[in-house]
Amino acid sequence: MITKHDIEQAHERIRPHVHRTPVQTSHSINDIAGCSIYFKCENLQNVGAFKARGAMNAAMQIPADQRSKGIATHSSGNHAQAIARAAKILGIPAYIVMPNNAPLIKKEGVKGYGGQIFECEPNLKARETTLAEVIAKTGATEIHPFNNYHVMTGQATAAKELFEEVNDLDYIMAPVGGGGLLSGTLLAAKYFNPKTKVIAGEPAGADDAFRSLQSGKIELSQSNTIADGLLTTLGDKTFPIIKENVDRVITVTDAEIVEAMRLIWERMKMIIEPSCAVPFAGLLKEKPAFAGKKVGIILSGGNVDLEKALKLFIK
Amino acid sequence: MITKHDIEQAHERIRPHVHRTPVQTSHSINDIAGCSIYFKCENLQNVGAFKARGAMNAAMQIPADQRSKGIATHSSGNHAQAIARAAKILGIPAYIVMPNNAPLIKKEGVKGYGGQIFECEPNLKARETTLAEVIAKTGATEIHPFNNYHVMTGQATAAKELFEEVNDLDYIMAPVGGGGLLSGTLLAAKYFNPKTKVIAGEPAGADDAFRSLQSGKIELSQSNTIADGLLTTLGDKTFPIIKENVDRVITVTDAEIVEAMRLIWERMKMIIEPSCAVPFAGLLKEKPAFAGKKVGIILSGGNVDLEKALKLFIK
Repeated sequence: MITKHDIEQAHERIRPHVHRTPVQTSHSINDIAGCSIYFKCENLQNVGAFKARGAMNAAMQIPADQRSKGIATHSSGNHAQAIARAAKILGIPAYIVMPNNAPLIKKEGVKGYGGQIFECEPNLKARETTLAEVIAKTGATEIHPFNNYHVMTGQATAAKELFEEVNDLDYIMAPVGGGGLLSGTLLAAKYFNPKTKVIAGEPAGADDAFRSLQSGKIELSQSNTIADGLLTTLGDKTFPIIKENVDRVITVTDAEIVEAMRLIWERMKMIIEPSCAVPFAGLLKEKPAFAGKKVGIILSGGNVDLEKALKLFIK
Repeated sequence: MITKHDIEQAHERIRPHVHRTPVQTSHSINDIAGCSIYFKCENLQNVGAFKARGAMNAAMQIPADQRSKGIATHSSGNHAQAIARAAKILGIPAYIVMPNNAPLIKKEGVKGYGGQIFECEPNLKARETTLAEVIAKTGATEIHPFNNYHVMTGQATAAKELFEEVNDLDYIMAPVGGGGLLSGTLLAAKYFNPKTKVIAGEPAGADDAFRSLQSGKIELSQSNTIADGLLTTLGDKTFPIIKENVDRVITVTDAEIVEAMRLIWERMKMIIEPSCAVPFAGLLKEKPAFAGKKVGIILSGGNVDLEKALKLFIK
């Protein structure tokens, strides 16, 4: 089990290699939302996403002799860049399996950090098979995007930093895909601010976490949403933590995601990707539940093709 | 003359009413630029621009009995919102004269703060005439967008904050339009970090500051650039400070502005308006001069129509 001390140690470990991202507020957003929101800006993190934290923490914990053979993963995007960057910092190779429909900006990001890309069909089976081949050939260590305790512990440091700046939050919100950020956030709340309730945002078109909590077992994800970072299914390491600790999951439509995304772009002057807008969309959808409260929202990432985003905004 | 103490007092005065904006860095931007850049993110300031500082400082210095009659200005954009916001905070009326071609987002911003808009033709004479009429009718106090010592003093607080976080900058850069931010930045450097040289960025299509420094007198501005925040001509209060203290002015084309703007959007996940990209464009244009140096850049604002901005990016 991940302990409070693990999170504190992870924070010290990755501190030289990741940004302490700013916490931003906006009067106009607060007026619209009817509550006080503190945005933890992981879209301004290295590689444009919180994933820099977990990848760095996990890579640094591989023993040195094994580490030199490199690290490998399959990822649709932000985790891929985070692994490539961690490898660059540690001076080791990175092997990244990516679906052939991954956004161009994310592929370019991986190449920019010197990562080697292996493309495959956009389904979980093809990703896993290709990754197994790459690892057999190279001897690299796999770092899973979320179902890895070191990764989850690294992601927990984002919420830890937010609590260090705002210690009386009623709620903290994070998006849920595979559950790495959400489980990290849940553990950070449990250890550092137990009074703060954790609420997840999830796309209605990939609502496996919502359904898993109802059925009590891991349900498979569909993939019918623009939130391309949240298509994955929960893992056996993330689900138990989520099940035990999360207050609830709010699901939102793609139209609600675009509206929330646009508000952050226009009012806060920050670029966020669709997946990142999901918790704020959930808050807006259920405004009365948050009326007058202090709410932390982890803005997870900002990697989006600008042209694609433009098309979302033009009605 | 504005003193060091004036800037310190202004900073204390406005502190409860403006953000202390983050200073952001980016490895990939530094790789591209060949130097270490510290971006002071005034695009993340209230009203999305540094103008919140000067307007607040000036409004707070009007004697209470006079202040209740309101404040007035003419502005193409960000200063207008800043005045409307300052008035709202102080509970007094704001009267804003705006050119009828001002971006919609800026007009909506003014209305959102309860400011009253008076539209006029997009030229200086029409703006001044309309403003004089409004003031005659209301008794409001004019707060000029830049040619006002209290405004200039307020703008100086952005550079002051940057120096507080990074005290060994070789250069600090700011855009120049009317010269409010630039003269504030020059005075902040002079008083708080005299070793730091100040360089201005200016659009080639509105290069009146560049020409004024050559001729030794205030030259009129043309208006042939997408940088709509930098169309104004220097004032008799800003020009002497600029003339005495600025290291130099780098002029850039609109294509160079768009390229620099795109880099900030994509690599730093922040929305900046064309005017805001001008100093960074100047740095990229003259990279060898900055090689290996530590450079502060004040990101002045992020108020831009998304559709318009995104069209600039589509080649």
